[in-house]
Amino acid sequence: MGKNKRPQRIGILTAGGDCPGINAAIRGIGKTAIVKYGMEVIGISDGFLGLINKEYLTLTESSLSGILTLGGTILGTSREKPFKNSKNKKEISKPALMIEHYEQLGLDCLVCIGGNGTLKTAHLLSQAGLNIVGIPKTIDNDVWGTDVTFGFDSAVNIATEAIDRLHSTANSHKRIMVIELMGHNAGWLALFSGVAGGGDVILIPEIPYDEDVIKEYLLKRAHENKPYSIVVVAEGIKIPSKEKSSGNYIARKINELTGLETRVTVLGYIQRGGSPSPMDRILASKFGATAANMIASRDFGKMVAQKNGEITSVPLSEVAGKTRLVEQNNDLVVRSREMGTCFGI
Amino acid sequence: MGKNKRPQRIGILTAGGDCPGINAAIRGIGKTAIVKYGMEVIGISDGFLGLINKEYLTLTESSLSGILTLGGTILGTSREKPFKNSKNKKEISKPALMIEHYEQLGLDCLVCIGGNGTLKTAHLLSQAGLNIVGIPKTIDNDVWGTDVTFGFDSAVNIATEAIDRLHSTANSHKRIMVIELMGHNAGWLALFSGVAGGGDVILIPEIPYDEDVIKEYLLKRAHENKPYSIVVVAEGIKIPSKEKSSGNYIARKINELTGLETRVTVLGYIQRGGSPSPMDRILASKFGATAANMIASRDFGKMVAQKNGEITSVPLSEVAGKTRLVEQNNDLVVRSREMGTCFGI
Amino acid sequence: MGKNKRPQRIGILTAGGDCPGINAAIRGIGKTAIVKYGMEVIGISDGFLGLINKEYLTLTESSLSGILTLGGTILGTSREKPFKNSKNKKEISKPALMIEHYEQLGLDCLVCIGGNGTLKTAHLLSQAGLNIVGIPKTIDNDVWGTDVTFGFDSAVNIATEAIDRLHSTANSHKRIMVIELMGHNAGWLALFSGVAGGGDVILIPEIPYDEDVIKEYLLKRAHENKPYSIVVVAEGIKIPSKEKSSGNYIARKINELTGLETRVTVLGYIQRGGSPSPMDRILASKFGATAANMIASRDFGKMVAQKNGEITSVPLSEVAGKTRLVEQNNDLVVRSREMGTCFGI
Amino acid sequence: MGKNKRPQRIGILTAGGDCPGINAAIRGIGKTAIVKYGMEVIGISDGFLGLINKEYLTLTESSLSGILTLGGTILGTSREKPFKNSKNKKEISKPALMIEHYEQLGLDCLVCIGGNGTLKTAHLLSQAGLNIVGIPKTIDNDVWGTDVTFGFDSAVNIATEAIDRLHSTANSHKRIMVIELMGHNAGWLALFSGVAGGGDVILIPEIPYDEDVIKEYLLKRAHENKPYSIVVVAEGIKIPSKEKSSGNYIARKINELTGLETRVTVLGYIQRGGSPSPMDRILASKFGATAANMIASRDFGKMVAQKNGEITSVPLSEVAGKTRLVEQNNDLVVRSREMGTCFGI
Repeated sequence: MGKNKRPQRIGILTAGGDCPGINAAIRGIGKTAIVKYGMEVIGISDGFLGLINKEYLTLTESSLSGILTLGGTILGTSREKPFKNSKNKKEISKPALMIEHYEQLGLDCLVCIGGNGTLKTAHLLSQAGLNIVGIPKTIDNDVWGTDVTFGFDSAVNIATEAIDRLHSTANSHKRIMVIELMGHNAGWLALFSGVAGGGDVILIPEIPYDEDVIKEYLLKRAHENKPYSIVVVAEGIKIPSKEKSSGNYIARKINELTGLETRVTVLGYIQRGGSPSPMDRILASKFGATAANMIASRDFGKMVAQKNGEITSVPLSEVAGKTRLVEQNNDLVVRSREMGTCFGI
Repeated sequence: MGKNKRPQRIGILTAGGDCPGINAAIRGIGKTAIVKYGMEVIGISDGFLGLINKEYLTLTESSLSGILTLGGTILGTSREKPFKNSKNKKEISKPALMIEHYEQLGLDCLVCIGGNGTLKTAHLLSQAGLNIVGIPKTIDNDVWGTDVTFGFDSAVNIATEAIDRLHSTANSHKRIMVIELMGHNAGWLALFSGVAGGGDVILIPEIPYDEDVIKEYLLKRAHENKPYSIVVVAEGIKIPSKEKSSGNYIARKINELTGLETRVTVLGYIQRGGSPSPMDRILASKFGATAANMIASRDFGKMVAQKNGEITSVPLSEVAGKTRLVEQNNDLVVRSREMGTCFGI
Repeated sequence: MGKNKRPQRIGILTAGGDCPGINAAIRGIGKTAIVKYGMEVIGISDGFLGLINKEYLTLTESSLSGILTLGGTILGTSREKPFKNSKNKKEISKPALMIEHYEQLGLDCLVCIGGNGTLKTAHLLSQAGLNIVGIPKTIDNDVWGTDVTFGFDSAVNIATEAIDRLHSTANSHKRIMVIELMGHNAGWLALFSGVAGGGDVILIPEIPYDEDVIKEYLLKRAHENKPYSIVVVAEGIKIPSKEKSSGNYIARKINELTGLETRVTVLGYIQRGGSPSPMDRILASKFGATAANMIASRDFGKMVAQKNGEITSVPLSEVAGKTRLVEQNNDLVVRSREMGTCFGI
Repeated sequence: MGKNKRPQRIGILTAGGDCPGINAAIRGIGKTAIVKYGMEVIGISDGFLGLINKEYLTLTESSLSGILTLGGTILGTSREKPFKNSKNKKEISKPALMIEHYEQLGLDCLVCIGGNGTLKTAHLLSQAGLNIVGIPKTIDNDVWGTDVTFGFDSAVNIATEAIDRLHSTANSHKRIMVIELMGHNAGWLALFSGVAGGGDVILIPEIPYDEDVIKEYLLKRAHENKPYSIVVVAEGIKIPSKEKSSGNYIARKINELTGLETRVTVLGYIQRGGSPSPMDRILASKFGATAANMIASRDFGKMVAQKNGEITSVPLSEVAGKTRLVEQNNDLVVRSREMGTCFGI
């Protein structure tokens, strides 16, 4: 393959946990690559597993039609981490297989759509010599180098709607309702949904909490005749090692400390499913189209990103292995605290 | 108080778990009582607790305005069961207090809005000589004597939307997704949501399940290259006594028996919250208005009901202490089985 | 073909305006026919037009998978009325062509899914000797012989959500908001959505309205400091012949008569689109499965129906050419009037 | 009043068209002002009209509770433009009255929440010597000086959901569906919703359209067997002066030029109503809290804004009288065009 020729054939894979907007991104890459650049586009099945096993399908304009609004990923995904334990006794390692298949498929570039784990693998493939473009996607919003990932807005919508629903039950029963939201080690989803849902207490991994502060805050509300409280808890907050669920732990602890009737909801997988929100469809489409443009200008080894409201790109080497957490002086944390929200501290 | 005079002053209370549509029912009673009959209406706070403690507020036409679409109950609710442990050492028992306060408040009738527990208490109060009208409400749809309760349609909407969301994740990851829904000892919510959401396996308390049947069914689907399966589980199905969650148990069991990757979601309290569905608003309004008409014609000791599509009423004595379960030859079960759905048997 | 043998090959067509739930019905017929009875199933394209032109596709279990939640119809539809103007100069009339193609396709039965127009044509085909089963579908809920049609519940949800949205604008601006809803000559959609959405005035074709009554009612509300009013208008109410839109007419008239600021929304096609509601998915699935059972027992010339909460069937001859309207003493009308709603009379 | 003392008493008014998020902004200002700064807060009724007529109410922490999720504005609004025709024959002009009442109420600052018209008036009041802070709100997203206004995200959600619904009907009937969206002279809402909803043709005021281009594009789609097309039209596009609705005009024109069956929906007021989206609640809360902080530091004569993802402020003098339109080289326009969307040119 000539190093400087216009790419003619590209592959797309989606890896890690699914989230709303992936199909919109696939469509964005594919439509731009086909309509604007006349490239051939193939979809690799089930993340890196499909490249290891050489399983794929051809994507045409018509196979991209109607997927803009579809949740999940039409390519399938997997949690396969090919560079982990890859130095095994097999004759040929997974990374070597992937490179071999990339060549056999005649790819000029591979677009990797995924979260932190995926982008780390994408960087290693880039270092191994493949032409790679990364696209960040996750409901956790924790990818370094971009202000936002698609999937996040949809998840905030779902989680906020759930919190909205808890208000009526909390109010009718004068209870404390605790809800545990996803987000891994980052508090973005709990922070945004918690503020949008009018959470009284919001606990996120980035801000260590003091159980006595929470206790005093909730008892003060009860004494002021505020009949109920909503407590939003990120799954990743620090809890005793023997505990399994941050929501269950906090709910039990609150009940013990305050004596107030407390119930817990662990929202679970519905936070990741369903049709993407309009803004996620737009962001994913822009990310996808931008990736196609980067490929056309041979701008490899980078991840598409949004910074300060502008679409841009960052080197994968800067992104790989990092996690973007909520800063201590995050604007939304500061504003909410001024309005009376308790962050457990 | 003359036994046959037109009722002039009525009370309303809401007891047991909250559900969407209670406020629409309160509005239906109140507006009809005030506009059509010129009655006075008071709202008792927090279920039977409010009658025990004589806590109440006056409901006017303007205080009923805008509550049609509101979730929960503006009157508050509680789980207080006044006839249980009522023979205590106190000078005066809870039932006696309730009767005393009913008289002091000058009530000609008390409308009790609630589920099976509430209607049982309502019957006991009726037997004790109070003028009572019951209105069935519950997301569980398990009140004897009525084909449907308000709250159910809203809960089916929420649960089905959750199942819809699981499809995309299940498909992307080729997983079995188990979802546990509410319903107490009845399977109505799991049955309706399971069918509406395209559940492959639906387990309800009324139909004993055989784990081997489920195993074979899921493995057959996997072998036929159906990439994923959705398993809908009612909270009330029989599980080993040491287990706490039917969803968690079934998910673990499926994984053990089939080796297929399985995830579980316990949907929880959001099934009870939020604005009622249009059909629940209509049903609750009709139930409420009918209750007011029954009061005006001194038709006491009964519960408003819907049978064969018509609004009617049944004696509380027929309702109290019973639960309406899914029949073995339920039309929806039979039809779904013919279409290939597995009920674990 | 033997007259009494078990049907082996059936066709399905969908005609008239689309509505949510059609695909669920197709799936219900197809899955039951294939799984339970081992029949072959073909889908005729674009309503009766596809039978005239012999355009069709084979439906397998896998082509029925995933369509439960899909709006519209995977078979396409058309407004073709083959018996109208069929006595033309062509060598062969449309009905004759349809019968010829029915025979050529080796069909043992044709399932016609549609509203009043479709069911009339279905009846004529039945009279012409074809084995026909009809399934009622329409957002208008106006098919004679059934208490409810699928599509209606979904449309009520959409229309009610729209009315809910108007409340906040009406309240903020102290305006009268008029909304025109679909329904052809029937008022079901306006009645149900109007009640569920808390409409102050509800105008339907079945109840003649007096403009002075509306004027007095709205002025009384304004004088009582009720800051705004919602007026729900069915498209089919009687308006002067030169007027095009009932909503526009009523809004202009109200403004002229009361001097109150008035705005109008004509909700339009969104009432027919999108994923069916859970209850519509269930009803359509049951209707479809029942149709397959009727075919298996050669129970032809009938339409599937729901009466008094039970699935049943009625002869097409009883259904054809009739429209089910809101009765003058309809329970919901009476109850709403008692609660203070104005029906313009 | 001392010029440099810490403000102690502030007023809030909301003017112009209502939109989702106004109450969240009121809550944001009020909670921060009360909790953090101990200020008194009053709400002026019905926009500038309330200041002219000295109609207002006191806002306490408890009156701000529960309004985060509420659509519309609890303060009411009006289209009153007090500086227009203010030089009348009355003894005292409207602006003079407003200034007099501002003084009488003992206000240290007036927060004006509104769109372009409101912010223009706010600037004139600022020039007249009042302490003013402006907050931009509108579903049109057309306020100069800020990258985004609250209300916009909610409107995009509603409009996109409507377009989603049209797809199923368009597909079932093989029609062209035209939808007219709001936005005044700006195309933001049509652009974002059009892209998110997968619109094939998007017409906005900022990009002049050529009817022949649209015709060719739609006919090409029809010839390529794409069975239907969605056309999204901003209300503000240029149409012949005798035409009233851009959607109706374009639909008729497309039908004339292509002969393809075409239907139109004018979405109307539902775009402005209902509960704000989570992101609008967050943005409005941040804008509100920031306004309170600006007041505390006597940073008057400015409008709160978001630029490049950061909350900031701009002088009202820069904002007043300008409109923010979609730039010709807008990123989303360019990307969408590359993916094949037609902008009529």
